[in-house]
Amino acid sequence: MRHYRRAWLAGDLTAGLVVGIMIIPQSMAYAMLAGLPVQIGLYASILPLIGYALLGSSMTLSVGPVAVTGLMTATLLAPLATAGSADYLQLAIWLALLSGGMLLAFGLLRLGFLANFLSHPVISGFISGAAILIVLSQLPKMLGLAAWPDDPLTLSSSWDNSNSLVLAMGLTALCWLIYARSRLAAHLGALGLSATVAGLLARLAPILVVVLGVVLTLLADLPSHGVPVVGEIPAGLPALVWQPPDLSALRSLLLPAALISLVSFVESVSIAQSLARRKRQSIDPDRELLGLGAANIGAGLSGGFAVCGGFSRSSVNIEAGANTPLAGVISALVIGLILISIAPLFAWLPQVVLAVVILVAVVPLVDLASLRRAWRYDRAEGLTLLSTAAGVLVLGIEAGIVLGVCFAIVAQLWRGSRPHVAVVGRVPDTHYFRNTKRHLVETEPHLLALRIDENIFFANTKAVEQAISQALAEYPDTREVLLILSAVNHIDSTGLDMLSELTEGLRERDIRLHLAEVKGPVMDQLQHTDWIRQQIAQVFPSTDIAFNTLGKVRDRAPEHSGE
Amino acid sequence: MRHYRRAWLAGDLTAGLVVGIMIIPQSMAYAMLAGLPVQIGLYASILPLIGYALLGSSMTLSVGPVAVTGLMTATLLAPLATAGSADYLQLAIWLALLSGGMLLAFGLLRLGFLANFLSHPVISGFISGAAILIVLSQLPKMLGLAAWPDDPLTLSSSWDNSNSLVLAMGLTALCWLIYARSRLAAHLGALGLSATVAGLLARLAPILVVVLGVVLTLLADLPSHGVPVVGEIPAGLPALVWQPPDLSALRSLLLPAALISLVSFVESVSIAQSLARRKRQSIDPDRELLGLGAANIGAGLSGGFAVCGGFSRSSVNIEAGANTPLAGVISALVIGLILISIAPLFAWLPQVVLAVVILVAVVPLVDLASLRRAWRYDRAEGLTLLSTAAGVLVLGIEAGIVLGVCFAIVAQLWRGSRPHVAVVGRVPDTHYFRNTKRHLVETEPHLLALRIDENIFFANTKAVEQAISQALAEYPDTREVLLILSAVNHIDSTGLDMLSELTEGLRERDIRLHLAEVKGPVMDQLQHTDWIRQQIAQVFPSTDIAFNTLGKVRDRAPEHSGE
Repeated sequence: MRHYRRAWLAGDLTAGLVVGIMIIPQSMAYAMLAGLPVQIGLYASILPLIGYALLGSSMTLSVGPVAVTGLMTATLLAPLATAGSADYLQLAIWLALLSGGMLLAFGLLRLGFLANFLSHPVISGFISGAAILIVLSQLPKMLGLAAWPDDPLTLSSSWDNSNSLVLAMGLTALCWLIYARSRLAAHLGALGLSATVAGLLARLAPILVVVLGVVLTLLADLPSHGVPVVGEIPAGLPALVWQPPDLSALRSLLLPAALISLVSFVESVSIAQSLARRKRQSIDPDRELLGLGAANIGAGLSGGFAVCGGFSRSSVNIEAGANTPLAGVISALVIGLILISIAPLFAWLPQVVLAVVILVAVVPLVDLASLRRAWRYDRAEGLTLLSTAAGVLVLGIEAGIVLGVCFAIVAQLWRGSRPHVAVVGRVPDTHYFRNTKRHLVETEPHLLALRIDENIFFANTKAVEQAISQALAEYPDTREVLLILSAVNHIDSTGLDMLSELTEGLRERDIRLHLAEVKGPVMDQLQHTDWIRQQIAQVFPSTDIAFNTLGKVRDRAPEHSGE
Repeated sequence: MRHYRRAWLAGDLTAGLVVGIMIIPQSMAYAMLAGLPVQIGLYASILPLIGYALLGSSMTLSVGPVAVTGLMTATLLAPLATAGSADYLQLAIWLALLSGGMLLAFGLLRLGFLANFLSHPVISGFISGAAILIVLSQLPKMLGLAAWPDDPLTLSSSWDNSNSLVLAMGLTALCWLIYARSRLAAHLGALGLSATVAGLLARLAPILVVVLGVVLTLLADLPSHGVPVVGEIPAGLPALVWQPPDLSALRSLLLPAALISLVSFVESVSIAQSLARRKRQSIDPDRELLGLGAANIGAGLSGGFAVCGGFSRSSVNIEAGANTPLAGVISALVIGLILISIAPLFAWLPQVVLAVVILVAVVPLVDLASLRRAWRYDRAEGLTLLSTAAGVLVLGIEAGIVLGVCFAIVAQLWRGSRPHVAVVGRVPDTHYFRNTKRHLVETEPHLLALRIDENIFFANTKAVEQAISQALAEYPDTREVLLILSAVNHIDSTGLDMLSELTEGLRERDIRLHLAEVKGPVMDQLQHTDWIRQQIAQVFPSTDIAFNTLGKVRDRAPEHSGE
């Protein structure tokens, strides 16, 4: 704060104001998605912004209700209480408080690295699966249906019960928002507005739908035509809530809270990093944990809705010129002003408007481009992405993430279990050594040089052993085996046992085993083992030296030595 | 069979005879451990040996009841039926048949590699934990207690109820067996016997205890003094059993059967491999699966006791001169002869004798040497071993193995998540490049050469990124960054995304990124990506060439090119 520069103020003010207005429909919509009263979404846009501003490390990340935390709140709490009930509200509060506490604790324990175990395909699959779930949950509201029919075959008949007024409003709002997203900025630009202003105005398009919706309800008395509206909204700021927890309920919230913390953290950090890159700043994942923790505790205290960094709100923030977290504080003030002034008017807002706001926001989250890219790069990664998305859709959010993480880990082990082992030879007249199967190289008949292209660990010891045996069978004149360990970054004890038995087996056949290019950290660990001290003949600093030395030893007398 | 040589017959006959006699007490003891009638142990020493001889690949492995499968049968069936009941027997039969079927199926599908996911520390921890469980289960029988008191504090009072006759017999048998294991062979050798014969005689010491036990019971009517004996044993060979399965029971046996298959397979293969090495033979894991599958189906058909290769019986087999699986067939004949002749006499065998046979066999399985070695080599591996053993003791066999495997996998990921990244320079007047922190090397002020010593994948992308940023901060004059990928065997899509963003970030600071020593398989995968085609400045075949080329480009004009 002491370092705040005057020049930053204008940008922070504009950004705070624009974001504050822009997030009004979003916040209410995501609260609806979470099964909470819409004003909770607005409440969760005040204290969390201030909490994050105090502890977070990103200058421009904007935290608040987002679609994914909304969906997670709804699906994680669904088995525990009925949406809208007092129990449900209480659980939502505790979910936010617990995940805030966990995030703070992880931050203090510097456990930010835990998020690394979510690979990009898992995150992308999760987000896509969640987005599809959200679309499915909101479509009936836009189509004027009360809910999806239990039996898909009755869809056409339940169609007759749909409210065509709602459907018409929904389609109109949808067209306007799609237009606003794709063309409005360009058209405003053509009218002479600067690109930045045109872009920001286009981002505020949902506000117009909200205002029109409220006005239309008041003029035409829409509720009497069967159009569901938001319903009563208390005026004023949220009362800080503190109720003693129910221990058994808390226990059932532990896993959901952990999951929501993990997802919020991963999402926020990746958004914060891409923002920081644009401004050539850097962020500290452990401080992000603290900031998000404070934000979620703030969210819990003001009524309960787990929050996280949002991509679109943060983009608008940075585009509108935000320089520091002060912009977030100003957004919080804007929302506070709205709450003590016009918020009760939102009671007349048709729910279909919020459903359309959600739909337009989440459809782009279904990330087919990532799927195509992952699939093309590596089938296993494409499968990881697909299985995570399918897991989220079919088995639910928790099982989907767990499935994806397991799939990614197994794919990683599987890859490591099939090491590339190459017989190498000298590229003529150089000191380079290359795979005999890819290059024209020179070899020595009694010297078998093998480069092992993988860490040697439990999942591949058998495969490495087999590759070496096979190479020995192909080169029956071998008297000296040289293992080139330039690509071996670790040997675990299972691998060490295998190598030790292999060396013993070779010794019985009067073949000596040598090593070359052992990395420093690997040598540090090996130097006290019997294998390196007694069984290995020689350790060479480079393959070149090894070839020069061993290439000459053509007529070694049979011996059983370890030199 | 067609290739059978006459010269092998003598060895096979001797080995078959010695092993056949030696395994009588063992087989009965392990059946008792499994909660089965003791004759089932004898039955399980006939058909399985023949089944393995038909399909297995090891020349000298001896399969049959072993301590670990006995314990696993007992603990896996305990939640499903009362030990000794008809249901329990039926479940044991189905457990053996199911695991036999699974092993056969795995063999036909060539899934032998699955065993690789059990690392040595996990196997060692499991065996040690299981051995301790076995000791705990047999100690009361040796001490003359009916069972362990539920409350440890009442141990001293329940001591009063112990049978001192049983205790005395137990201690005597224990002393004799310990002496037989440690000294008897040497003492027999001193009497003029050859080392081999003395060794084999010492291995038959338990038979003496069995014979003495039976004689003593008959002479002194021990059961009337409260000494538990084995009880009725039917004469004759086992009737082949086939009962239609109960589907719900089968389903509950699936996981136990899979677990017992996995453990039997890993144990048998590691024993078979160490035996094969002694005789310079080789074994085929997939054929081992088939042999073990046939053995277990034989075990199931003859009354039910999952079998596996045993270390001590196989050692005796090879020491007594076994050359082919014919030795196993002869052992089976010996057991068959015993069953149709003197087996009913074993009814008078005191149970304490069998308990002592078990204790002496399993105490050496508690493998403190492996723990010490694993701990010294790598703390994480020591912890894996300990946590597997503790898991087996506290949570049970299934949870223990699962815990151990998870621990090993997480440790592996954890290690990969902390990559070693070295800034390298040229060793003066050579073409070698070494870590600047370990060696005196020459660097160029504007060229930062980094060697990444780990595959770049989701668990370490953040760490690699951070290491590169840190190196850039340490070398602020850097204009060219060279990533040396000699130790990178795979880059996953999460890593690729990071590298692509990193390259973009560097480009904005007018720093170019180059690669050197990209491995063939990595290049194959990368060559179609935008990263390598558009973002990377140059890819050099060697660090030497890269240094020679980039070292000269001192006065590059600022540009934004990807060449």
